[in-house]
Amino acid sequence: MNSPDSSAGILTIDLAELKRNWQRLKSRLNSADCGAVIKAEAYGLGAGRAIVQLCQAGCTEFFVALIDEGVYLRKVLCDVGLKANIHILGGPMAAGQTLEEFNLIPVLNSLVDIAFWKEKHPQAPADIHIDTGMARLGLSPSEVEMLQKEPQRIKGLNISYVISHLACSEDFKTTMNADQLKSFHQALTLFPGCKASLANSSGIFLGDKYFFNLARPGAALYGINPTPGKPNPMGQVIRLQGKILQVREVNAPQTVGYGATHQIKGQGLIATVGVGYADGYPRSLSNRGFGFLGGVQVPIVGRVSMDLTTFDVSNVPEQLAHPGALIDLIGPIIPVDDVADAAGTIGYEILTSLGHRYQRIYKTIY
Amino acid sequence: MNSPDSSAGILTIDLAELKRNWQRLKSRLNSADCGAVIKAEAYGLGAGRAIVQLCQAGCTEFFVALIDEGVYLRKVLCDVGLKANIHILGGPMAAGQTLEEFNLIPVLNSLVDIAFWKEKHPQAPADIHIDTGMARLGLSPSEVEMLQKEPQRIKGLNISYVISHLACSEDFKTTMNADQLKSFHQALTLFPGCKASLANSSGIFLGDKYFFNLARPGAALYGINPTPGKPNPMGQVIRLQGKILQVREVNAPQTVGYGATHQIKGQGLIATVGVGYADGYPRSLSNRGFGFLGGVQVPIVGRVSMDLTTFDVSNVPEQLAHPGALIDLIGPIIPVDDVADAAGTIGYEILTSLGHRYQRIYKTIY
Repeated sequence: MNSPDSSAGILTIDLAELKRNWQRLKSRLNSADCGAVIKAEAYGLGAGRAIVQLCQAGCTEFFVALIDEGVYLRKVLCDVGLKANIHILGGPMAAGQTLEEFNLIPVLNSLVDIAFWKEKHPQAPADIHIDTGMARLGLSPSEVEMLQKEPQRIKGLNISYVISHLACSEDFKTTMNADQLKSFHQALTLFPGCKASLANSSGIFLGDKYFFNLARPGAALYGINPTPGKPNPMGQVIRLQGKILQVREVNAPQTVGYGATHQIKGQGLIATVGVGYADGYPRSLSNRGFGFLGGVQVPIVGRVSMDLTTFDVSNVPEQLAHPGALIDLIGPIIPVDDVADAAGTIGYEILTSLGHRYQRIYKTIY
Repeated sequence: MNSPDSSAGILTIDLAELKRNWQRLKSRLNSADCGAVIKAEAYGLGAGRAIVQLCQAGCTEFFVALIDEGVYLRKVLCDVGLKANIHILGGPMAAGQTLEEFNLIPVLNSLVDIAFWKEKHPQAPADIHIDTGMARLGLSPSEVEMLQKEPQRIKGLNISYVISHLACSEDFKTTMNADQLKSFHQALTLFPGCKASLANSSGIFLGDKYFFNLARPGAALYGINPTPGKPNPMGQVIRLQGKILQVREVNAPQTVGYGATHQIKGQGLIATVGVGYADGYPRSLSNRGFGFLGGVQVPIVGRVSMDLTTFDVSNVPEQLAHPGALIDLIGPIIPVDDVADAAGTIGYEILTSLGHRYQRIYKTIY
């Protein structure tokens, strides 16, 4: 844990709001269960903290990308005496023994995965992933056809869930969601009596046809709007504040930062904050992003550099702009989606890029 | 350390090449010293490893951004019985006591910093930073004027180096470098007998007028070209390889990935690699970046997702494209600057974004 005096950014993570977001999603799901995707350190927020909080809220199904992530989280749960299922989306790779040892459920993404698992670990549970439109992981249409001809390939497998993944779930107008739903239903006929899971965050807002037995939200848990273009039904989980290291008077024709991309007009005040792209505050925010100081929007001027970002604070009451003062960079006043818009990316990348030099403060109700 | 079986990316860091890069730069500097900027975990590569390697090569002056970084590195040096000066570019903030305790040299960036340091830590060494064109940190032109009128403000200070920083050093045609050099010389008249430092990586290639007593390269140490547009005189320090999790046949009119942004024409082979933007492989490489597999350039098709990236491997010999095979993403075949170009950013941001789920292998000669 970095200290408040010797670090230059404060990242506050509201675990109570994370829990409320999970409950908000669960309340929409009728009788279906609500899992949680906590890969990539729970989208940068800290997977160890997230799994404990969500497990205590009643979540039992957790999804990560890699076996390493699952091993770490199993240890975290054991340490605090909690139990839950941990699913590995990336598949079994060659590490079946590790999966069994740490009680992890691999997602079998191909007929090769299925054959491997059936031979080496016939009793251990596994998920089966049907690709219905991502062409990324999961059984391809031709592999599903093969299964139809040779159903013995899955006979005797201990299947936890049959899953698929939506490619355009945040787009409520595309026909792609309905197409994927149809393909998924067709594939499910090969798995009578098995539980199924399709919806990600935005999928939960596509209606109950998409619920099946389990939803797997990720982004919405962490405050990203699952219904772009409509009001965000989720709460903001993080607040990122950058500490002002220096405030300086500037005068035309001075320029600011690398490449001299911002030219001062007249005179003004620049606040230099000790957060930069090495902290995950993207360089693409250069001359485009903004923060808030004392209720005033302060634009980024010049290029975001590795450890520093410069804001025009000319319009901020003088007594508020001083070394040690904090500028809001991401959070309740500037939702993560707005920061992503300014940076030309999506909130997911903003969150997973959050750096490790911040003082991290976890707010919680337990 | 993540394991080869259970992680999906391998990041090899060649510490011997890092050392050679430092020696290459030093050999250009005549009698001036060559320091090393190792902030932001030595640009993402691991500052603890880097400082030991460079210290053993003869480097004595190291620069980081934050006090936290300096404290960590002082402990690393103590553990292995090495000595070096560690400078804190972000300034003393309010943590003077910590600076003295860990023998860290703050860069004083303002008259306020100077007054604070002179009062609280009159004997301890400090650098003084003159801003000559960044408008980010350092004494402003008006503060330098004030010093000219009131030289007693710095009387008795134990000054290590007077430093400044170039804004456009990689641009060999701009007049900005000469302007900054002139301003720096003017300011240096206030500090007779003090050692001075101006050149960053590219500054070393601007000629010996920019050398003063110490250069402070960062980027070039890690393989970024300090002379854009000309052949790169530095060696590549990192190699990033992504593991193929699955290879799939695809057929028109299938689409690939989120948002269905890539449409298959005819038929082909897609390899899905377990590296995504959560690992610092930027989402802006979607449909633009490429890797290498078996000597064949393989384009990214579809969007880079959080944990996965899809490559078109249709042109790769069949026996090479299989689960477990490694696709080169960054490294000797695809220099970090080329990856940055494709992503619309600079190599610095590529390096400092390198993620923590890779298996990291440090190659070294000691």
